[in-house]
Amino acid sequence: MPLLRSWIETANSAETEFPLNNLPYGVFSVGDGDLRCGVAIGDRIVDATGLEAAGLLRADPDADVLDAPFWNDFMELGTTVWASYRAALTEMLAEGASEDAQDAITTYSVPMADATLHMPFRVAEYTDFYAGRHHATNVGTMFRGAENALPPNWLHIPIGYNGRASSVVVSGTEVRRPWGQLKSPDHEVPAFLPCRRFDIELEMGAIVGTGSDRPVSVDEAEDMIFGYVLLNDWSARDIQAWEYQPLGPFQAKATATSISPWIVTKAALEPFRTSTPEREKELLPYLTENKPGLYDIPLSVTIQPENGSETVLAQTNYSEMYYSSAQQLAHHTTAGSPMNAGDLLGSGTISGPTKPERGSLLELSWGGKEPIEIEGGTRTFIEDGDTLTLKGAAQGDGFRVGFGDCTGKVIPALDASDLPYKTER
Amino acid sequence: MPLLRSWIETANSAETEFPLNNLPYGVFSVGDGDLRCGVAIGDRIVDATGLEAAGLLRADPDADVLDAPFWNDFMELGTTVWASYRAALTEMLAEGASEDAQDAITTYSVPMADATLHMPFRVAEYTDFYAGRHHATNVGTMFRGAENALPPNWLHIPIGYNGRASSVVVSGTEVRRPWGQLKSPDHEVPAFLPCRRFDIELEMGAIVGTGSDRPVSVDEAEDMIFGYVLLNDWSARDIQAWEYQPLGPFQAKATATSISPWIVTKAALEPFRTSTPEREKELLPYLTENKPGLYDIPLSVTIQPENGSETVLAQTNYSEMYYSSAQQLAHHTTAGSPMNAGDLLGSGTISGPTKPERGSLLELSWGGKEPIEIEGGTRTFIEDGDTLTLKGAAQGDGFRVGFGDCTGKVIPALDASDLPYKTER
Repeated sequence: MPLLRSWIETANSAETEFPLNNLPYGVFSVGDGDLRCGVAIGDRIVDATGLEAAGLLRADPDADVLDAPFWNDFMELGTTVWASYRAALTEMLAEGASEDAQDAITTYSVPMADATLHMPFRVAEYTDFYAGRHHATNVGTMFRGAENALPPNWLHIPIGYNGRASSVVVSGTEVRRPWGQLKSPDHEVPAFLPCRRFDIELEMGAIVGTGSDRPVSVDEAEDMIFGYVLLNDWSARDIQAWEYQPLGPFQAKATATSISPWIVTKAALEPFRTSTPEREKELLPYLTENKPGLYDIPLSVTIQPENGSETVLAQTNYSEMYYSSAQQLAHHTTAGSPMNAGDLLGSGTISGPTKPERGSLLELSWGGKEPIEIEGGTRTFIEDGDTLTLKGAAQGDGFRVGFGDCTGKVIPALDASDLPYKTER
Repeated sequence: MPLLRSWIETANSAETEFPLNNLPYGVFSVGDGDLRCGVAIGDRIVDATGLEAAGLLRADPDADVLDAPFWNDFMELGTTVWASYRAALTEMLAEGASEDAQDAITTYSVPMADATLHMPFRVAEYTDFYAGRHHATNVGTMFRGAENALPPNWLHIPIGYNGRASSVVVSGTEVRRPWGQLKSPDHEVPAFLPCRRFDIELEMGAIVGTGSDRPVSVDEAEDMIFGYVLLNDWSARDIQAWEYQPLGPFQAKATATSISPWIVTKAALEPFRTSTPEREKELLPYLTENKPGLYDIPLSVTIQPENGSETVLAQTNYSEMYYSSAQQLAHHTTAGSPMNAGDLLGSGTISGPTKPERGSLLELSWGGKEPIEIEGGTRTFIEDGDTLTLKGAAQGDGFRVGFGDCTGKVIPALDASDLPYKTER
C-alpha cells in the first residue's frame, strides 16, 4: 500500500508517524480547555468531539459518543462503525477533499504542538501476558537454568495474569520509584526499602473494543480488538523476586504501566500483518489462527539520564511474539469471565533472539551482572532521573504508521519521612 | 452491646440477620421496577433511594448519591457521612421513633420477600488474598510437602493477586462450570475439557469506600474500608494446577466470584472485633496494627445436590485469618497503585485448624483423595446441580448481624457444540 496523500501537507512526509494511512485516536486538551477526542494527522489533531457536536462527522446518528474524554463509547459501536467512520474521515482529509470538508477540518483541528495528550481510553481491566518466547527463555534461564527455562505449560498456553487497571498512565506521566517489601539473598528477613532493581518491559497493548460474555474463537477475538498502543510495564524486580511465589507478581507491577498517547487501529496496521512463528508443539484448536496474527512493527527503547543524551537500549519487533493478542483474548474468555470495552491486554515483553533485541534491563544486564554502556555511564537497572522511551512505527512504502512516543521519567522514591509509618524495624 | 429495638417487630427477633444493630446496604428491585439502593431491617427493605428523592433522609444535602443502582457514590463520601447517615436511619427505625419517621419508612419500604437483590456496588477492581494460615498450610502441604508448606514470604507478606472484577456476581447467580486447558498427570499434552475439579473458597470480602493514591498505614486503610460481604471464590483446581506457574492463577479464578447481597458496615461489626493471631515472625512496621483487625464472625458452607437435602460442609470463623483486610489494603498501596471506591479485597480462604473447619473442597477431600459424606452421597469436588451456600452472622447478646446467604448453583458446562471451535485435536 502506498502513502495516501492528504491536503494537510505535513501528513505526506516520509518521517511523520501520522500520515493519512494511520489516523490514530487520542484525547487532547489545549490550555485550560476540556478534554476532547482527537485524531492525529501530520502535525495537527482533528477535534473529533467538535466535528461530532457540529454534525459534520458523526459515528452514531442518534447519540454523541465522542462527548467524553475517552473513546470507549465509540469503541463499543463495533467493527462496522469503526470502518465507516474511518472511511468518512479519510475522505475529508484526502487530497482533493471537498472545500466543505477542508473548511470543517480547518475549523475543528489544532496544532499538535499546542495540545496536551491524555489517556485515550478508560481502562476497564488490565491483563498482562508473558507471551514472548525469547523473553520467557531469558528470564527462565536466569531463574531456573537453561534446561528448565520455559515452564511446561508455556508452549501450550498464552500465560497471563491480571494487573491493576488503576496504575495505567499515559506517556509523559512521571513514574515514582516504589517502596516495597524485599529480601536480599544475604539477609534472613525482609526489609521495607525503595526498589533497587527498577525496570522496564517493552510491550504492545491490545485494546478490547467490543465485549463478550461467552467464550470466543481467535477469529471472533480478532474482531473484538479495536487497536494497539505501545506499553511499558514498569517492574520492580527485587519486589517481584520476593513476592511472586506462589501467586504471581503483585506490588512489583503496581507502580505504573505507561501507554502511548495514540491508539493505532487494526485498520491502519492491516498492511503490516505477519504470522506467528512456527509452533514447536501443536496448539489446541481453541487457539487456532486463520490469518496472520502479528504485525511487523519495529520497536525500540531508549534511555536518557537527567541532563544527558539518549542511548538506544534495544531494538526489536512485535513480530517476535509467540502468541497474538487475538489468541490471548480467546484464551482469556475460556472460563467465562466477561470481557468489556476498554480491557487492555499487554502482549508480554518483546525480546528478539540476540542481546541488542532484549526488551528489559533484567535481560540486557543479565540480572544486573553485566552492566550496559550508555552515553555518559553504565546501567544495570534504572536510576532516578532517567527517562525511558518506547518508540514504534510500522514502515510502509514511503510512509510510517506510529504510536507517538511512550515515555516516562523515573523520579526518586518518597522520602521515608513522607510515609505514614516507620520504614525500619 | 444489647439488641437495639425497632418498631419494626421482625427486626427484634433473635433469629433475624437484620436487626437494627445491622442495617446492611444492598440494591433491590420489585417486579419490573428499577434498581434502588436499600437497607435491610427485619423482613423489610428500606427504599433509601426513595427516602433521598423525597428529601426524608439524605446523605448529601446537595447531591443525589443514591439515585443509582449501586452504593459507590455514597461510599465515596467517607466515614463522617457514613456515621451520620447510619445515626439518622437508626433514629427513624428505633422503638419510639417519631410518627413522621414511621410514616416515611412505611411509605418507603417493601417486604424483603417481594424483592430481587442485585449487586450492591460496582466492583472497581478485585484483588484476592491468600492470608488464611490453615488454608495456606493445607494447600502447601498437598503441593509441596509438610516441611515446605508455607512459602518463605508467607509470614511476612499478605500474599495477594489481582482477580477479574467482571467475574464478580451477586448471590443467587447460577455458576456455569467452565471449560479450560488442563493436563492430567498421566497425559503428555494438555486437553481442552470441562473442569473436573470445580471448587469453592469460603472468604470474606472487604470493600474500599474511599480511595487513595499514596501509600497508607494500616490505621488509614481501616478508615478507607466501607464494609464486608461474604465471598465465594469459585476455583477450577485442574485448570489452576496446569496454568499457575509461574505467574499465578488466571482462568482458574475467572468463572465467577459470588458475594452476599448485603454489605455489612464496619460500624455494625464493631462490637465483634478481635485480634489477629500472635505473630510467628515480627511484621515490618508498615503492617503494624493499632487495634484488633479481625471480627468474630462464625461462617459456614453448605452443599445441596439437585433435589437433595443440605449438608454442612464446614464451619469456621473470620477470626482465623492471619492478616486483616486493613493490613492487606495497606500492603496493596505500598508500590503506588491508586485504590478506588468499589475495590473489592477477598480475604483468602478461611480454614480453621481442624478438618471440619476447612473452607474449600480441595482441603476437605484432601485433593480429591478422601471423599466427603454428604446427605445422599459423597463428594470430592462440586457436581452439576449442586448448590453451594456460604452463611455468616456475628452473634451478639440476643441478636445476630448477618450478610444474607451467598449462594450459587453450579450448572453444566456449555455443550461442546455450543462452543465456537472444536474442542478436540
